[in-house]
Amino acid sequence: MASSFFRTGKKIIAIGRNYAEHAKELGNVVPKEPFFFLKPTTSYVANGGKIEIPRGVVAHHEIELGVVIGKGGRDIPESEADFHVAGYTLAIDMTARNMQDEVKKRGLPWTAAKGFDTFTPVGHFIPKSAVHDPHNLKIWLKINDEFRQNGTTSDMLFRIPQLIEHVSSIMALEEGDVILTGTPSGVGPIQPGDAITAELSEPAGTEPLATLNFLAVQREGGYAFQP
Amino acid sequence: MASSFFRTGKKIIAIGRNYAEHAKELGNVVPKEPFFFLKPTTSYVANGGKIEIPRGVVAHHEIELGVVIGKGGRDIPESEADFHVAGYTLAIDMTARNMQDEVKKRGLPWTAAKGFDTFTPVGHFIPKSAVHDPHNLKIWLKINDEFRQNGTTSDMLFRIPQLIEHVSSIMALEEGDVILTGTPSGVGPIQPGDAITAELSEPAGTEPLATLNFLAVQREGGYAFQP
Ligand SMILES: [Mg+2]
Ligand SMILES: [Mg+2]
Ligand SMILES: [Mg+2]
Repeated sequence: MASSFFRTGKKIIAIGRNYAEHAKELGNVVPKEPFFFLKPTTSYVANGGKIEIPRGVVAHHEIELGVVIGKGGRDIPESEADFHVAGYTLAIDMTARNMQDEVKKRGLPWTAAKGFDTFTPVGHFIPKSAVHDPHNLKIWLKINDEFRQNGTTSDMLFRIPQLIEHVSSIMALEEGDVILTGTPSGVGPIQPGDAITAELSEPAGTEPLATLNFLAVQREGGYAFQP
Repeated sequence: MASSFFRTGKKIIAIGRNYAEHAKELGNVVPKEPFFFLKPTTSYVANGGKIEIPRGVVAHHEIELGVVIGKGGRDIPESEADFHVAGYTLAIDMTARNMQDEVKKRGLPWTAAKGFDTFTPVGHFIPKSAVHDPHNLKIWLKINDEFRQNGTTSDMLFRIPQLIEHVSSIMALEEGDVILTGTPSGVGPIQPGDAITAELSEPAGTEPLATLNFLAVQREGGYAFQP
């Protein structure tokens, strides 16, 4: 079931640089076609949980709209993409930014920098029927009650049907897979002790579609990054 | 069940440059600690199947010993790693080499270059009890009956317990996860129409532990790489 993606999903496909302002803030150019990386589903942590920051790691928040796949498929054309979407979720694509900077320089995979346990804090499943237009949603993230990211999904460079067409032309999608659609500008570090809140909502200020609450803590043991 | 990893496993963790001769042949230095990337399980294709080469892609074979995780865990010390191994498998880490060269230059993820459908041809589950010593196995790959790779797992730079300790210090391992342990030298392109065979065996020429047979074909439709 797509609604149990947290438990049963096999992949998390995360799109890079899908908001022009965010590409700019990291000194990157806007891509000509979408690109993506995989995060392991072991990086999920459910709403209310703790985000663990590994030793030596500068951990950045990236708030993102997640698309939950319902019906799997391969070579899905843009025009049929909506049929494969079961719903949405709100997620944070946590990133070990100093590790990522290093592997980018050396031409190495992004996997570890993006894949630590608890590096994909995520909310509940939002059925498609509850969302008026996924490309017109307010999305924000606060640290200790201060806005850090405050954007709208209308700023996506590649829209959801294009992302589904692109990804499924390379790798088949399956029920429960989640596509993280990229982050608006304002990314930055979180520190142990920080309270992270985030929200996804329709523009006409009704009840939010999702509200996230996480506490950042220092990871005990595990990998230590030494630059 | 670990033995059904093909159907139920969630991640494929592939180690890079774990044989000195292979690192050298691609002009890379030997890493100081293991590094890895994820392949989606949608890239599995079972023995006897077809390896599809996407348009514009130079697809290289990398024959690898796969370790199938039985008992999951996090922060698994080297000394306890064997307890988490259920068995082994023989797999080919297919790689879109020209795409990989391009993303390495640009500091982008390896994911698409490694993650196409059918890019992880794989054999059956080999229970741990059937293998005398995983670090002393002959491993070879032939194209149209000619040897291309012919190595021994005794040449691994980082051994299986070290790999399990390293990976699990970053991301938790789960039952059915597969760790591909890197490839010996001799990687190179396969062409549509090529017959690929591969074998894993004990050094004292008894029955092979695994024999793979795949046919390479041109992928119809899907992504086309334009350098
Ligand atoms: Mg992101
Ligand atoms: Mg995966
Ligand atoms: Mg490999």
